[in-house]
Amino acid sequence: MVKTECLLCGQEFPLNLHHPFCSQCHQPLFLKTSLPLKDDFSDSDSFLEKLFPPPSGQVSLGEGQTPLLRLASLEKKLGFNSLWAKNEGLNPTGTFKDRGTVRAVEEACRLGIKKIGTVSVGNMAASTAAYGARAGLETYILVRGDVDPQKLKLIQTFDACLIQVKGDYGELFDKSYELGQTYGIYFINSIDPLRLAGYKTIAREILQQLAPLSPEVIVVPVSSGGHFLGIFKAFLELASLDFLPQLPLFIGVQSDRCSPLVEAFQRQAKVFTRIHNLPPVPYAISNPNPPGGNLVLHLIYKYKGYLVAVSDEDISQAQQLLALEEGIFALPSSAAALAALLHCQNYLPSLRQKTICLILTGTGWRGKRVFNPGKTTIHQTSLNALDHFFGQLLAKERKKTTLKNLLPE
Amino acid sequence: MVKTECLLCGQEFPLNLHHPFCSQCHQPLFLKTSLPLKDDFSDSDSFLEKLFPPPSGQVSLGEGQTPLLRLASLEKKLGFNSLWAKNEGLNPTGTFKDRGTVRAVEEACRLGIKKIGTVSVGNMAASTAAYGARAGLETYILVRGDVDPQKLKLIQTFDACLIQVKGDYGELFDKSYELGQTYGIYFINSIDPLRLAGYKTIAREILQQLAPLSPEVIVVPVSSGGHFLGIFKAFLELASLDFLPQLPLFIGVQSDRCSPLVEAFQRQAKVFTRIHNLPPVPYAISNPNPPGGNLVLHLIYKYKGYLVAVSDEDISQAQQLLALEEGIFALPSSAAALAALLHCQNYLPSLRQKTICLILTGTGWRGKRVFNPGKTTIHQTSLNALDHFFGQLLAKERKKTTLKNLLPE
Repeated sequence: MVKTECLLCGQEFPLNLHHPFCSQCHQPLFLKTSLPLKDDFSDSDSFLEKLFPPPSGQVSLGEGQTPLLRLASLEKKLGFNSLWAKNEGLNPTGTFKDRGTVRAVEEACRLGIKKIGTVSVGNMAASTAAYGARAGLETYILVRGDVDPQKLKLIQTFDACLIQVKGDYGELFDKSYELGQTYGIYFINSIDPLRLAGYKTIAREILQQLAPLSPEVIVVPVSSGGHFLGIFKAFLELASLDFLPQLPLFIGVQSDRCSPLVEAFQRQAKVFTRIHNLPPVPYAISNPNPPGGNLVLHLIYKYKGYLVAVSDEDISQAQQLLALEEGIFALPSSAAALAALLHCQNYLPSLRQKTICLILTGTGWRGKRVFNPGKTTIHQTSLNALDHFFGQLLAKERKKTTLKNLLPE
Repeated sequence: MVKTECLLCGQEFPLNLHHPFCSQCHQPLFLKTSLPLKDDFSDSDSFLEKLFPPPSGQVSLGEGQTPLLRLASLEKKLGFNSLWAKNEGLNPTGTFKDRGTVRAVEEACRLGIKKIGTVSVGNMAASTAAYGARAGLETYILVRGDVDPQKLKLIQTFDACLIQVKGDYGELFDKSYELGQTYGIYFINSIDPLRLAGYKTIAREILQQLAPLSPEVIVVPVSSGGHFLGIFKAFLELASLDFLPQLPLFIGVQSDRCSPLVEAFQRQAKVFTRIHNLPPVPYAISNPNPPGGNLVLHLIYKYKGYLVAVSDEDISQAQQLLALEEGIFALPSSAAALAALLHCQNYLPSLRQKTICLILTGTGWRGKRVFNPGKTTIHQTSLNALDHFFGQLLAKERKKTTLKNLLPE
């Protein structure tokens, strides 16, 4: 029997796909895994593969194995020593969600489940619909009433059953489990234990790709808390196995338009206050009632991490820095990780000497919003005039967007 | 000194970045490489890495290592034995172009070149602009007058100098090399020898990922001919080194809205006729005057391949089949590969028994066009009514899009 455990109270529960919460703490549960013995493996790669196995079966769409890129230009210009980005945008549907979805859908197939679903504002919906199609399952997607129609079109690509629901998002989340129980639908929501197990694979890749270095700081955007929890749990396991010189410092990031956890962190409160009647936030990090929020707070306090909120302007600047200096087009909510780092270095100058890994959660290519669309000129000319045009263009210095006008004073 | 060679006449030339064509045959040139000796390597993986090395330096954005996916559901439903898709959409800017761009930009950095450029209708522009930003080079993008403004916005992301030029696309292509010579800009166009060398890396990955099988049929969309030539050359080298049981059968694919090579193939002509005054074609495969076209024809004749044209309807059906049956959202011009296979099996029924690799050249996520957007319903309900709604929904059988109404009679 597959077991789950609560990180807060230590209680164990049999895996319940329709109620993946601790009955006492009401926080998300983790799959209980027996950690392998390090001595049983000849090298660290095979040990890491055993600890956080990649997906195996036919359901895979090639998720994971995303690039870890050194941000050499930003290091130099911003004064950092060792700055890296894990670009999760190169997953099959363009976000980290795929790592979790594949793990859950593989389990669904193993258990003979025929119907899956999710409650999402966009990225998780596209991911779940794609893997549902791949596995030949019926897929039900519940979305909020105010989701961008362009996003819905992309979800429709995979012919999932798409249901737009007016009403409170937090209640819809709870309701989905009831529906799942009644109608035999496995709702693979943001904090599903199998999803979290899938997210753990990124820890293996970071260690393998960064070797011989080890990450000292990890910056990750936080919405429901699921992604943060999956990654954090993986590093806790690695630390408990003496596989790390130290547990990395975790910095969680939210948008200041919706930052219930940052708000609690600033008050040093154990429990966050949910946000009601939130106007639509144009980011993937916008959960007003994060189901893993209190567990995120617990881990941040216990292991001395940070939670920071960043503004629209910070996010836009960070997105431009990544594109212009490094050629990486990240989702705004991913660029938020860089924005948070720039924010934190003001009161934590020692960060500049650390080995830092930004988790870029998704690709910018899929969105329709492009920063700063009006600023750059599109020159227009004709074939006959092209020679003359180039002569003039190259004679004067190009007014390039510079760091100076991107960074805050 | 780096040398290039012509596959048609065998002549060698020093690498000339501003004129990468045979002065006699006017066809694209390949980098001349001395093939390693198989016996010098302990295993085939290290031999393949030596033959087609992955990019090394800081310019890399994590291109290549894209998934090779078995299309098990389509195999079953369409009656194929061994059908695979190499999903190039998981490259950093969403297309195969990145494999070539990184190779050329690495060389530009090595040579101390400060300005690069390209002539493109979209995907190559985005790729070149991204790697230009990554390497800190000035990047000049020449685009046709009729390019979709949405595509231009994405290119602007990287702050390249974007110049829209009215006039003939073929002439613009030639003109770019003149400008390059005059102003010291390395125009990394579609058939650049370094670009072609970068495309060869896909052959290594296909062999490694497909092992112990070997590809018997490769289906690849053809526009300028550059991608086709890079892949074909790699397999020719592998065959010459006795690394393959046989050279795969190559099937090149064009859209029937712009198929100068298919038209020549049907006449068994050595030289294609360029298309004038072509109305805009909504696909990435739409070069009316492919600079590598005659060399593509030569290879197709010599090694008994095929060139086929597919219709808008074929492409749309194939795109839906990939999404609904396999969870892969491919660019329409990539889905054309599946459309071509379905077309060819009518007169080549033996294809069904072969190991077939479709090259899916790019991701569908980046485009704004989604097939069939009106057909799928978006259900709307409220939280209170959700229970009742689900009961009714699941009581009746879902009208799922089926293969039957997707496939032609």
